[in-house]
Amino acid sequence: MLSEYSIRRSVEFVETDMAGIMHFSNFFRWMESCETAFYRSLDLPQISFVPGQIVGWPRVNVSCDYRAPLRFGDTAEVRLLVMEVRTRALVLGFQFRRCDAQGVPQGPVVAQGEMTAVCVTGGPDGVMRAQPIPEAFRAKVAAAPASAWAE
Amino acid sequence: MLSEYSIRRSVEFVETDMAGIMHFSNFFRWMESCETAFYRSLDLPQISFVPGQIVGWPRVNVSCDYRAPLRFGDTAEVRLLVMEVRTRALVLGFQFRRCDAQGVPQGPVVAQGEMTAVCVTGGPDGVMRAQPIPEAFRAKVAAAPASAWAE
Amino acid sequence: MLSEYSIRRSVEFVETDMAGIMHFSNFFRWMESCETAFYRSLDLPQISFVPGQIVGWPRVNVSCDYRAPLRFGDTAEVRLLVMEVRTRALVLGFQFRRCDAQGVPQGPVVAQGEMTAVCVTGGPDGVMRAQPIPEAFRAKVAAAPASAWAE
Amino acid sequence: MLSEYSIRRSVEFVETDMAGIMHFSNFFRWMESCETAFYRSLDLPQISFVPGQIVGWPRVNVSCDYRAPLRFGDTAEVRLLVMEVRTRALVLGFQFRRCDAQGVPQGPVVAQGEMTAVCVTGGPDGVMRAQPIPEAFRAKVAAAPASAWAE
Repeated sequence: MLSEYSIRRSVEFVETDMAGIMHFSNFFRWMESCETAFYRSLDLPQISFVPGQIVGWPRVNVSCDYRAPLRFGDTAEVRLLVMEVRTRALVLGFQFRRCDAQGVPQGPVVAQGEMTAVCVTGGPDGVMRAQPIPEAFRAKVAAAPASAWAE
Repeated sequence: MLSEYSIRRSVEFVETDMAGIMHFSNFFRWMESCETAFYRSLDLPQISFVPGQIVGWPRVNVSCDYRAPLRFGDTAEVRLLVMEVRTRALVLGFQFRRCDAQGVPQGPVVAQGEMTAVCVTGGPDGVMRAQPIPEAFRAKVAAAPASAWAE
Repeated sequence: MLSEYSIRRSVEFVETDMAGIMHFSNFFRWMESCETAFYRSLDLPQISFVPGQIVGWPRVNVSCDYRAPLRFGDTAEVRLLVMEVRTRALVLGFQFRRCDAQGVPQGPVVAQGEMTAVCVTGGPDGVMRAQPIPEAFRAKVAAAPASAWAE
Repeated sequence: MLSEYSIRRSVEFVETDMAGIMHFSNFFRWMESCETAFYRSLDLPQISFVPGQIVGWPRVNVSCDYRAPLRFGDTAEVRLLVMEVRTRALVLGFQFRRCDAQGVPQGPVVAQGEMTAVCVTGGPDGVMRAQPIPEAFRAKVAAAPASAWAE
């Protein structure tokens, strides 16, 4: 059972905007990258297709608090914490921290996010229906203790 | 005094993902487009530079609820509502609705978002400091009445 | 038979980078937007799905020359010209020009691009196979005369 | 003197489109990532600011050939080769190859790109002027022999 995961990533040129900082929308893309790596580490599919059907995890709610900017070349740790495993949905929390030259997270959280994703099956009619989280996920993913979230 | 604005926009191919729907992060980009058009309609700068200084509106908090997907070619209305004008921050709300072939919003809200942006001055040291919202903005931007938000 | 199309579009904040100009990769996204509008104007599908199959136009070669930057808020015309209709491929050319406040293209070409897209069918095995361009396209799309390309 | 560099990278969910493959524009973003890593390995700045001035490398021409798609989760090597060091411009070539589970490039080149970037100084008037490549770059970057490019 895994409740937490982290990746390190550097801000790319294309991720900056004319204000000289990482565009706020890209923090969500980093969260998703961390989520992908989390699932991969568990050998769980983030999306799967069977003829005429697709099983995926569309988001129903996301949010992010920004406390300090990231700039081109900054390396940051994205830390994922499983906050809740519901019947049909997963709630994931994310903390961003800048890393030093050795890749060690340093200083305060610069951004903190949350995503609620619902497990759905999409049929050939294009309609997506929420479904219980598959057993394969339940067997491997567990909520982190509240204490894990402490900054 | 303006409290509300709206744009229409169609989902582009590059905005979709392999699940066949608009990637969730792009809703934030659409919100920002609507915000840009809102400021432009008021002849207010969204970002400005003076030698050694930059005045802008970095976000401190954003969120979005997703109720139904948008697909390639869908046209949607993004409606901006000014929710709060604080001393140093603006809170903006956004509603997304699909449009019919004539560009008229139809049916329920498919996504609803919120952004809190702080007015900052960035000095030559790269540090951004919150500052009171300039009078030019206060003279033109006002909070919408709560009733405007009704779906 | 249509050989040419154009759209107008404004540079968005997220499309800029820390150098203060539109990121070079976004010119390709604008070309694709123009291509989408071109097909839509002809009521031709840019991508279509039949059970187990997908028909689309992956690019086999693209290029772009950049002569002057576009900046946040600039409005530009993207003009598409059909350069060649081959058996299995379309070659499209694109010219970008800045527009004045009335949306009229002004001054020299700021960027010029080209895309060669091949018509493919993707089977359930995920393999894409080139196929002759459907009659529905041939009936509506024709190469522009070389003179149309003059700057 | 360095003439070549490579990175490995995995296709992210947001980089795919509804055709189920990496969007063609993202190959240019991967090229730029490799370029960034190349400069960083040499301790050379890809962009730098002095009061009132910016020194950067806008692209004047880019192109890419696509031979096979990349899909979500695919890991690929991006290999950069310095093709030419001109007075004011650098020509960089790029080859993409899929990697096996151990991160070793396997099989044929799936995409091949090229970028010509010009060294410019941007003044306070916003105008960018080409300038000779700084000595710091010339001392560290050299064209690869033609043989290095062989597939």
